[in-house]
Amino acid sequence: MPDAKSYDGFIIDGAQYAKWDRAIFEEMRNGGVTCVNVTLVYWESARETLSEIGKWNRLFEQNGDLIMQARTADDVRLAKSLNKTAITFAFQHCSPIEEDIDLVEIMYTLGVRFMQLTYNNQSVCAAGCYENEDSGVTRFGRQVIKEMNRVGMVVDMSHSGEKSTFDAIEISERPITVTHANLESWHPALRNKSDELIKALAESGGMLGFSMYPFHLKNGPQCSLNEFCEMIAKAVDIMGIDRVGIGSDLVQGHGNEVVEWMRNGRWSKEMDFGEGSSSNAGWPEPVSWFRGNSDFANIATGLKNFGFKAEDVEKIMGLNWLQFFESSFTAK
Amino acid sequence: MPDAKSYDGFIIDGAQYAKWDRAIFEEMRNGGVTCVNVTLVYWESARETLSEIGKWNRLFEQNGDLIMQARTADDVRLAKSLNKTAITFAFQHCSPIEEDIDLVEIMYTLGVRFMQLTYNNQSVCAAGCYENEDSGVTRFGRQVIKEMNRVGMVVDMSHSGEKSTFDAIEISERPITVTHANLESWHPALRNKSDELIKALAESGGMLGFSMYPFHLKNGPQCSLNEFCEMIAKAVDIMGIDRVGIGSDLVQGHGNEVVEWMRNGRWSKEMDFGEGSSSNAGWPEPVSWFRGNSDFANIATGLKNFGFKAEDVEKIMGLNWLQFFESSFTAK
Repeated sequence: MPDAKSYDGFIIDGAQYAKWDRAIFEEMRNGGVTCVNVTLVYWESARETLSEIGKWNRLFEQNGDLIMQARTADDVRLAKSLNKTAITFAFQHCSPIEEDIDLVEIMYTLGVRFMQLTYNNQSVCAAGCYENEDSGVTRFGRQVIKEMNRVGMVVDMSHSGEKSTFDAIEISERPITVTHANLESWHPALRNKSDELIKALAESGGMLGFSMYPFHLKNGPQCSLNEFCEMIAKAVDIMGIDRVGIGSDLVQGHGNEVVEWMRNGRWSKEMDFGEGSSSNAGWPEPVSWFRGNSDFANIATGLKNFGFKAEDVEKIMGLNWLQFFESSFTAK
Repeated sequence: MPDAKSYDGFIIDGAQYAKWDRAIFEEMRNGGVTCVNVTLVYWESARETLSEIGKWNRLFEQNGDLIMQARTADDVRLAKSLNKTAITFAFQHCSPIEEDIDLVEIMYTLGVRFMQLTYNNQSVCAAGCYENEDSGVTRFGRQVIKEMNRVGMVVDMSHSGEKSTFDAIEISERPITVTHANLESWHPALRNKSDELIKALAESGGMLGFSMYPFHLKNGPQCSLNEFCEMIAKAVDIMGIDRVGIGSDLVQGHGNEVVEWMRNGRWSKEMDFGEGSSSNAGWPEPVSWFRGNSDFANIATGLKNFGFKAEDVEKIMGLNWLQFFESSFTAK
């Protein structure tokens, strides 16, 4: 395996959800990670979301030598120059805006830059990828997309149904994202996306972040780095080299109560096992070549060995996200 | 009465609470008002406060030709140069932070620049001026002051008890304010402040904003402009010319249900009449020389006629607040 320092370009990760602490931030620094788009909440209310932001404000205060909040692409560049990791905020569900359109701008002001319209289930905005029926983006969803477009918050359809995602691509006046998912044609999974969908996503200027969460990978935790790079090459054939990045979906430090919260929130009294099963209910084992924030250089090396040009490796590892942040995070 | 345009210096008002609409913003422009520190909430929760901020965000969007949000003294200067009125946010009570220290920074990020530790009653931070006993700033209150000092939110003790206010002056490492009150020695009222208190306030670098709310005035709605200027001259004798400004406490457009909310929130099932009485329960009649945002020039003229030098009139009308904003609104 290559040394973590063997890749010194921009590394931007479109999705992580950890039990954040100083050890993880040190690992980010050791891994040369420029920016992580962190999941703040899954099912939390507006008020609960404020508390999650409050926790992050304490983390910024206490670990200002390692991390900083990023609200713009320039903040990400500044973090790189200061040898810090930039943190952007993301919601994996629309519960924090509570059917209140005004909360979009308020959450934006607090630093939130990505919001999923839904997490697996039908939401007030759109259908999730676990619903049998997908009736597309709702009346409220249209208003939310318009408001997100206005303020500069990015629509993320990672956990949405296919029709809803096509709808969002069409309705949104600014490019949208699937921050963390892979190709259904490479590994069939409710969370992975069809070739038609990622083609439409790319044509509209949107971005796909490749996930290393084992449920999204061919052969699960046994997926090889070469297989992963093969999938990226296939996506690049469909989407072009400028519309793809990393969205690792890395989870660190959380106990099984957190995967239960992620899957069940408060919406079910019966246990829903999500991508797992009753016999495989907990967090999946990670792949050997990506266990944490020190391992991004492995991917850069894998891409290079697979045959990607150095400049294309840089785009996939971070420059595409940086360019996307540049055009997406400003108010219209 | 002089023309509203007869004074073209900075006009900064430390306290207003209106049923805000475009007509009021036009009046602010006609009156040459540079900045108004608006009351967002009295007794509202964190979540309710987000909705009040949401309403303001809509007002900024819809009336961007007349008003703009100010987060810094430079924003206030920018507003003046753009011929707009700058709006800063204030809380008249600590209910929006809900005993959660993290909410101080979150509300600051959303633009809140002043918070009263209490409104008339005992709060979790300090005692209000209507309590019989004032045991001073509480354990939580000390933490709140420290956090407000850190982020750049100003402590306002307008509705606090005397001991609590002396405590806050001593505990706070940055100057504090009484944004809207007058001199008790000029007009005895629970809401007005003792000469000793305003002296200590000024010595610590704090500011007093003079109120034109009739309950705080000698002779109530019949108070003359000359009597008001006499009181200002007395305050300047005690505090010096650099520590005083305007905090009109102007209320416009609200029905009596709002004065009831202001006085009773949800804390009482019996009607509390606050500064009024059962026979005088509604909003007081305004003084003839200050009925709204067009009338600030009257005060400037009154001060000039009373004998204040032109440069001192400018300080009282706005430059002292501007200087105070400059040194207060930045993080430590």
